[in-house]
Amino acid sequence: MTRVAILGASGYAALELIKILLRHPQAKITLLTSRQEDRPHLSEVHPCLTGMLDLHCEPFNADRVSKESDCVFSTLPHTASMQACSKLLDRGAKVIDFSADYRLSNPNVYAEWYGESHTDVTHLREAVYGLPEIYADEIRSARLVANPGCYPTAAILGLAPLASGGLIELDDIVVDAKSGVSGAGRTAKLEYHFPECNESTVAYNVGKHRHTPEIDQVLGEIAGTSAQVIFTPHLVPMDRGIFCTIYTRPQRQHSESELIELYRSYFAKMSFVRVMNRIPATKDSSFTNFFDVTVRVARGRIIVLCCLDNLIKGAAGEAVQNFNLMYGLPETTGLI
Amino acid sequence: MTRVAILGASGYAALELIKILLRHPQAKITLLTSRQEDRPHLSEVHPCLTGMLDLHCEPFNADRVSKESDCVFSTLPHTASMQACSKLLDRGAKVIDFSADYRLSNPNVYAEWYGESHTDVTHLREAVYGLPEIYADEIRSARLVANPGCYPTAAILGLAPLASGGLIELDDIVVDAKSGVSGAGRTAKLEYHFPECNESTVAYNVGKHRHTPEIDQVLGEIAGTSAQVIFTPHLVPMDRGIFCTIYTRPQRQHSESELIELYRSYFAKMSFVRVMNRIPATKDSSFTNFFDVTVRVARGRIIVLCCLDNLIKGAAGEAVQNFNLMYGLPETTGLI
Amino acid sequence: MTRVAILGASGYAALELIKILLRHPQAKITLLTSRQEDRPHLSEVHPCLTGMLDLHCEPFNADRVSKESDCVFSTLPHTASMQACSKLLDRGAKVIDFSADYRLSNPNVYAEWYGESHTDVTHLREAVYGLPEIYADEIRSARLVANPGCYPTAAILGLAPLASGGLIELDDIVVDAKSGVSGAGRTAKLEYHFPECNESTVAYNVGKHRHTPEIDQVLGEIAGTSAQVIFTPHLVPMDRGIFCTIYTRPQRQHSESELIELYRSYFAKMSFVRVMNRIPATKDSSFTNFFDVTVRVARGRIIVLCCLDNLIKGAAGEAVQNFNLMYGLPETTGLI
Amino acid sequence: MTRVAILGASGYAALELIKILLRHPQAKITLLTSRQEDRPHLSEVHPCLTGMLDLHCEPFNADRVSKESDCVFSTLPHTASMQACSKLLDRGAKVIDFSADYRLSNPNVYAEWYGESHTDVTHLREAVYGLPEIYADEIRSARLVANPGCYPTAAILGLAPLASGGLIELDDIVVDAKSGVSGAGRTAKLEYHFPECNESTVAYNVGKHRHTPEIDQVLGEIAGTSAQVIFTPHLVPMDRGIFCTIYTRPQRQHSESELIELYRSYFAKMSFVRVMNRIPATKDSSFTNFFDVTVRVARGRIIVLCCLDNLIKGAAGEAVQNFNLMYGLPETTGLI
Repeated sequence: MTRVAILGASGYAALELIKILLRHPQAKITLLTSRQEDRPHLSEVHPCLTGMLDLHCEPFNADRVSKESDCVFSTLPHTASMQACSKLLDRGAKVIDFSADYRLSNPNVYAEWYGESHTDVTHLREAVYGLPEIYADEIRSARLVANPGCYPTAAILGLAPLASGGLIELDDIVVDAKSGVSGAGRTAKLEYHFPECNESTVAYNVGKHRHTPEIDQVLGEIAGTSAQVIFTPHLVPMDRGIFCTIYTRPQRQHSESELIELYRSYFAKMSFVRVMNRIPATKDSSFTNFFDVTVRVARGRIIVLCCLDNLIKGAAGEAVQNFNLMYGLPETTGLI
Repeated sequence: MTRVAILGASGYAALELIKILLRHPQAKITLLTSRQEDRPHLSEVHPCLTGMLDLHCEPFNADRVSKESDCVFSTLPHTASMQACSKLLDRGAKVIDFSADYRLSNPNVYAEWYGESHTDVTHLREAVYGLPEIYADEIRSARLVANPGCYPTAAILGLAPLASGGLIELDDIVVDAKSGVSGAGRTAKLEYHFPECNESTVAYNVGKHRHTPEIDQVLGEIAGTSAQVIFTPHLVPMDRGIFCTIYTRPQRQHSESELIELYRSYFAKMSFVRVMNRIPATKDSSFTNFFDVTVRVARGRIIVLCCLDNLIKGAAGEAVQNFNLMYGLPETTGLI
Repeated sequence: MTRVAILGASGYAALELIKILLRHPQAKITLLTSRQEDRPHLSEVHPCLTGMLDLHCEPFNADRVSKESDCVFSTLPHTASMQACSKLLDRGAKVIDFSADYRLSNPNVYAEWYGESHTDVTHLREAVYGLPEIYADEIRSARLVANPGCYPTAAILGLAPLASGGLIELDDIVVDAKSGVSGAGRTAKLEYHFPECNESTVAYNVGKHRHTPEIDQVLGEIAGTSAQVIFTPHLVPMDRGIFCTIYTRPQRQHSESELIELYRSYFAKMSFVRVMNRIPATKDSSFTNFFDVTVRVARGRIIVLCCLDNLIKGAAGEAVQNFNLMYGLPETTGLI
Repeated sequence: MTRVAILGASGYAALELIKILLRHPQAKITLLTSRQEDRPHLSEVHPCLTGMLDLHCEPFNADRVSKESDCVFSTLPHTASMQACSKLLDRGAKVIDFSADYRLSNPNVYAEWYGESHTDVTHLREAVYGLPEIYADEIRSARLVANPGCYPTAAILGLAPLASGGLIELDDIVVDAKSGVSGAGRTAKLEYHFPECNESTVAYNVGKHRHTPEIDQVLGEIAGTSAQVIFTPHLVPMDRGIFCTIYTRPQRQHSESELIELYRSYFAKMSFVRVMNRIPATKDSSFTNFFDVTVRVARGRIIVLCCLDNLIKGAAGEAVQNFNLMYGLPETTGLI
């Protein structure tokens, strides 16, 4: 039984993580932190967990966290997360970080997109990008896993078979993504006030979303060359789920059935990827750790259509998948 | 053409009011106020109004408001509203107040439910309760109209034919109300954050909602005796609309058809009441100034089922109905 | 390992049941039926189950079902269900029936409310009402369990402590219920077409809903006398969840804290009841088998506020709870 | 006052059309048709119109329609519409057709995409494509107007300034569109059943949607050369609204401010186009006849972000705009 701590327990990703870990036979949640000073009981922070776990959220203390737990999941915001994780790593903990702090291997790219200098370049060097379908081997021996962003998980998995096979132009990719509102976090703001975003669809951060360099980097690694995507996120009025419509330009023409066969073959051994003939709907992967995908050909383009639950396969579920790999457990433990 | 000012232009009721007044042939919006110090343009506050009205929201100044307008609609919160309205009334303006400040004729009841002393008892004495279906004559000659709450509009209109005819026990009434989230206002709070209240239904302020004494008071006036209701509001995941299910105990038994006939007769001359055989749905009165109602009998009880748009018939539309009466216009002007 | 069959696999309750049983360590789904003649694969009927269970839905055949399974969950509609269950019981199967066919002990009451004669009075006599919080002992030894309706589960559990203690007038109870749309089933009809019922709230079957006699009967059994409720269901625009607001008249006055204490005491040993101080929201019990409840006192009335997931605690989860009892397993197996 | 008839009165576009025409000072609805044989009253077909218009829906009879009306709005489905319109045109009526039957100038293209031969090529030759921002002059003198599809209205207006100015590659355009569910019509089907499509986003008809050739054709006309778009529609869980994200490749680089200026200039005299600096949200144009648009530049691409209400600017409002032009009225009559 591995003792786990969760930093930033009041958010949505932490909530899903707690739910998964409560059913996980090899993990025991021993400590929760939040920035709320009054040490609220978990059931006050997340009423849906009433009766499920008798812990209070306490302020972060590196010594205490590393003493009480073996593995730490950090769901803190970027910059705050590397400050905490750095101390925990120095104290010997294993860390799975949900923030962007350890995802971009080049600290200059981090500084450019996040507007702040990277303050933990030392540990950044050993960080492994936690996309199990691509980096399972590295994750198994990692001490610090950078859990991917929700959009990058969808975009990269959707493009991996094409990029890996060198089938498409890597500088002519459009990723049009539609996300449920939980992706915006749990902080109340006017734009996420129910009567503002209900019954509405809108794009945001066009050309500027911070998940862009993350997609570029990993896609480039998979392809073995540089890649550059146009990435446009949208907010749609639903709780959870990301649907990605990805437009690519193939080097030569392929039929839909060839491409679906390619996808089936590429993902054949992956427990959480479902290659479908039908177009997947976000609802069908919601509340699961599945990534669903299909492919269409239209007017010479290959269009990838894929979806996942942003809080599970795009965050907490993926983190537990990484945890399972790090601790030598079957990848699906606690997740099916 | 009457010049109108709107206090508190950034809220939802003000938005609906502006939309209605922009189509009203006898009203011209000349001034808007808000508490935002940077004098934002209306299109910044309400992007949906882009290109519709070229005004900035300015800080409240009683002299300026009374000079630039003939009639003032105040959508300020309670206590703030009477402070502003008092000054405007002293300067000769006509006022339609959306807050609760002038609804309760007894200032002690106000103090009891709102937790603050009433600071404008002078004008309170001349205030008319702005429910046009009941008080049209008084409204026509009023200088200060207290626009009803959204729930009281629904509950009182739903009960008026029964209370007026002395058909029911006035101390055995349950009003179970379901409201869209716009009823909670436009201030971002965690409980109205989309992923919190979407896909959820919950009761709130049970036994304590401030619309209770308002319903009691007006129902009592209609019945000519005292009345006391059990009122329970709920939040349901939709933008707008209130559905009221009202349980009453009749003095003697009536058939459904008798009761529906009674309702048709009572509301026969009312432009905005639709008595139906079918059970009305909130969607059918949304974006209109209609109050829809039907009646059922079950196990000896009379159950009233009624609905309206909380922002229109429950706020802005009703206010314009009052405005029309105050200015001698046909009641439906700008509203159909 | 118990082999289970599911009749009527294409509906929402069956879908939730399959999801639960796939995680249940002591149950194995061996057979599915549906009325679709082309024997569709489960993943065609429920795309979200792709890759989870490799079975086709086949036409009902009593011999085959009883040969291939030990316990049968029937989610067939009423009358169709008793026709099938009767044959299975005769062949020695254990049956958990989701329909109303075995819930009402008096076949005349069934005929009155369902408009059809009961055709299996023989087995009706041995049926046990499957509300584990009330009838756990009977369920343990039952061969035929009538799984309760979703509304009755909420209403009866919400009222049980009051009715059991003789605290309220049993002929003066109003149950005002709000349900998500999955409660209406999976058959496409205009009234459940997204643009019709989205953004709308409406009551239906007022005074006529067939769950009324079920609530009366069980409440009466708990109280040891007859009971008669006014029951009004509403449809609110969400997928799942039922919120019940129950208005009762106490014999004498009690404080809220006394009542909450009574509830805590009554449900102390129940795994799936959470008595709360705060008002529960449907979202907090959604996707769980919990029944959440609190109590308020207002103007002399006791108001019970409670909720559950209509598909889980109100259907599939409750059925598995019954299954666990029938097979001597811990009640929470597969449900937490 | 022009007498108007509406064919196919039971759908959503017809409902919006009736609402608009009821407020239109120069139009009087004199006749409604539907395929329901029992001649339902309009208030039975659309309960929200109770008390608004006292007409029954009658079966289509060309003689009667042309006798009772001057202008006919047909909201019939394709093929059915041209059968009816053909007869009305022969009897001298003016026709505004919501179907696709008169939109594609080449009947072979029609046959290819709609799978049926065109049966009214005679009238097709005189049909004018009813996009007022582009074809106002032709519409003024037209007898037969083909009202555009909802998606084409958005895509074409979004691209017109770029296509007209020759700024972009016309064979490298991706139109990624997100629509509310009312766009799928009012026929109940499982995929639009509330619990199926609520809380879900999905693409459909990828590479095959019939609005594709319509966008190609009109865009080509505007550009004066051929155009070919990749068009992908999606369904998002909201009642109404279309958001289009359009990816184009410019001939040479332009700044965002240059492009926004270009758009402002191009649409300067258009009453219903709002060029914005901010990214528009569908909610802000819902229930209006506005088309809202802005432009962004990202990694060398021009991205157009635009939205409209699919039932108003994408259907009924646009039709009334056409009606106004055909009858020499100010374009905004009844629409603001």
